Amino acid sequence: MSAAASALGTPSLAQAVPAAEQAPGFYRYKVGDITVTAINDGYGERPLEGFIRNADLAAVTKAAEAEFFPAPGRVRITFTTLVLQTGGKTVLIDVGNGDVGAPTTGRWMGNFRAAGFDPAKVDTVLISHFHGDHINGLRLKDGSAVFPNAEVLVGSEEWDFWMDDGRMSRAPEAMQGAFGNVRRVFAPMAAKVGRYQGGKEVAPGVTAVSAFGHSPGHTCFVIASGSAKLIMMSDVTNHPGLFVRNPDWSAVFDMDADMARATRRRMLDMVATERLHTAFYHAPFPATGFVAKDGDGFRFVPVQWS
Amino acid sequence: MSAAASALGTPSLAQAVPAAEQAPGFYRYKVGDITVTAINDGYGERPLEGFIRNADLAAVTKAAEAEFFPAPGRVRITFTTLVLQTGGKTVLIDVGNGDVGAPTTGRWMGNFRAAGFDPAKVDTVLISHFHGDHINGLRLKDGSAVFPNAEVLVGSEEWDFWMDDGRMSRAPEAMQGAFGNVRRVFAPMAAKVGRYQGGKEVAPGVTAVSAFGHSPGHTCFVIASGSAKLIMMSDVTNHPGLFVRNPDWSAVFDMDADMARATRRRMLDMVATERLHTAFYHAPFPATGFVAKDGDGFRFVPVQWS
Repeated sequence: MSAAASALGTPSLAQAVPAAEQAPGFYRYKVGDITVTAINDGYGERPLEGFIRNADLAAVTKAAEAEFFPAPGRVRITFTTLVLQTGGKTVLIDVGNGDVGAPTTGRWMGNFRAAGFDPAKVDTVLISHFHGDHINGLRLKDGSAVFPNAEVLVGSEEWDFWMDDGRMSRAPEAMQGAFGNVRRVFAPMAAKVGRYQGGKEVAPGVTAVSAFGHSPGHTCFVIASGSAKLIMMSDVTNHPGLFVRNPDWSAVFDMDADMARATRRRMLDMVATERLHTAFYHAPFPATGFVAKDGDGFRFVPVQWS
Repeated sequence: MSAAASALGTPSLAQAVPAAEQAPGFYRYKVGDITVTAINDGYGERPLEGFIRNADLAAVTKAAEAEFFPAPGRVRITFTTLVLQTGGKTVLIDVGNGDVGAPTTGRWMGNFRAAGFDPAKVDTVLISHFHGDHINGLRLKDGSAVFPNAEVLVGSEEWDFWMDDGRMSRAPEAMQGAFGNVRRVFAPMAAKVGRYQGGKEVAPGVTAVSAFGHSPGHTCFVIASGSAKLIMMSDVTNHPGLFVRNPDWSAVFDMDADMARATRRRMLDMVATERLHTAFYHAPFPATGFVAKDGDGFRFVPVQWS
């Protein structure tokens, strides 16, 4: 009997491991003295068809195939927030889908707790913009606040746009849901929500960088400590496999497509030129890496895990 | 007082999270009915200088910079083994550095246990080849066997090369350590070690694929279940950022550089043409993804975590 056959005949010592159990979706790294923890909130999936306004489906499908997207004809959009431990404080940048996202989301709190954090001990929440996948984690469906002791800071222009009742009343039907959701999340805490503007330090070592276009007050954040620097690119691009490679493509989520495109070119060019360490909200987990110029576009090089 | 300043003034609710604590280094995915768990064993670092036999340092440095390697002038080589739960059995492919690797290694057992496994319940260990970073986890420094109930299966050509006393006695001084280490690991279990050859099914759904050159009996493994397929590329390449991109470069570890180069070209071409899901022992964790043709070489596209 060959050794291989003998191995097959050995009585099984099978392990009692649940097949679906995955390592928790957090990843920790340092930016100087600041500890950064990426927290994953699962993913949403949508058809490639209709996802990009200004490219035909054949070109988009080709790009998706070149990136080996897991589901044919579909894009899987992940959600990864940051937790910063900086200057003795715990600071969040965006908060995921809470309990109102797609069934493949809602992983945030489990991963946040697995990383050793307690929502009651969050000092500050920075919000990049008011799309649901970035703000819904602030408040559960039942109305309760998720971070009861945190100060919430939002972009001044973003707040003014979404909280303007006149603008809401004039907005197309398709946008009423988004306006309503912003009110669901923020109205109960409106008096306490702080506003920031681009260029301001919003937490120790964290500076807001205006990157308007994706939404009226869309903001990135530079996290700096000593000579180390990370930039949270928020939604300057959706999936890097599509939009870092093809920065002129416009996802349906970009509210001002032309401004978003100009911002994307400017920001990608800046991080590529300076070889800055980046994080992207919608990059595959752990959603951090570098950007290099490549032909007419750029390429995203994910970090090596350590 | 601005909102931002007020946030900075809030008494800290700082979390008591140890800054160095990282998510455990395992990643689980499915290949049909087979559950695959990638287990990381840390990394080793070495200078780029002298690492590649047939390329000058400037070219190698440029390649490393294009891939944003974390330490200037150095390559960080990670180690990622696979655990397969297949046909009711727990099967390992390679076992990491055990307790005799660099201080930045030795993470394997912690990650293996964090993934829910017990070394006493391993049925089969498949060894790709006899370099220390693949076999040292079989036996601790103190001589004890790590997987007391496992059948160990090794390549027939690999065994014959390393266990040949005449060849050891004629080998150059620089190779005596490697020969000695093979004996340290295997001699106490020599009578029980099974041999496989290319083309044979070595565990349920797992077939050995000869890929000689890196070592005399170096082997890859195809893991197949239903229409799903994964190929463990073992050391067909060292770091994909260097050798997938530049398949003609020869790392100092390739024992027969010409044969290794031909094997690398052949295997990369095959997995790119068939768009096969691949795992690489020395790719950045979780060390799995796809290979596409790109110019004169190839590019490695890591999987999207899920």
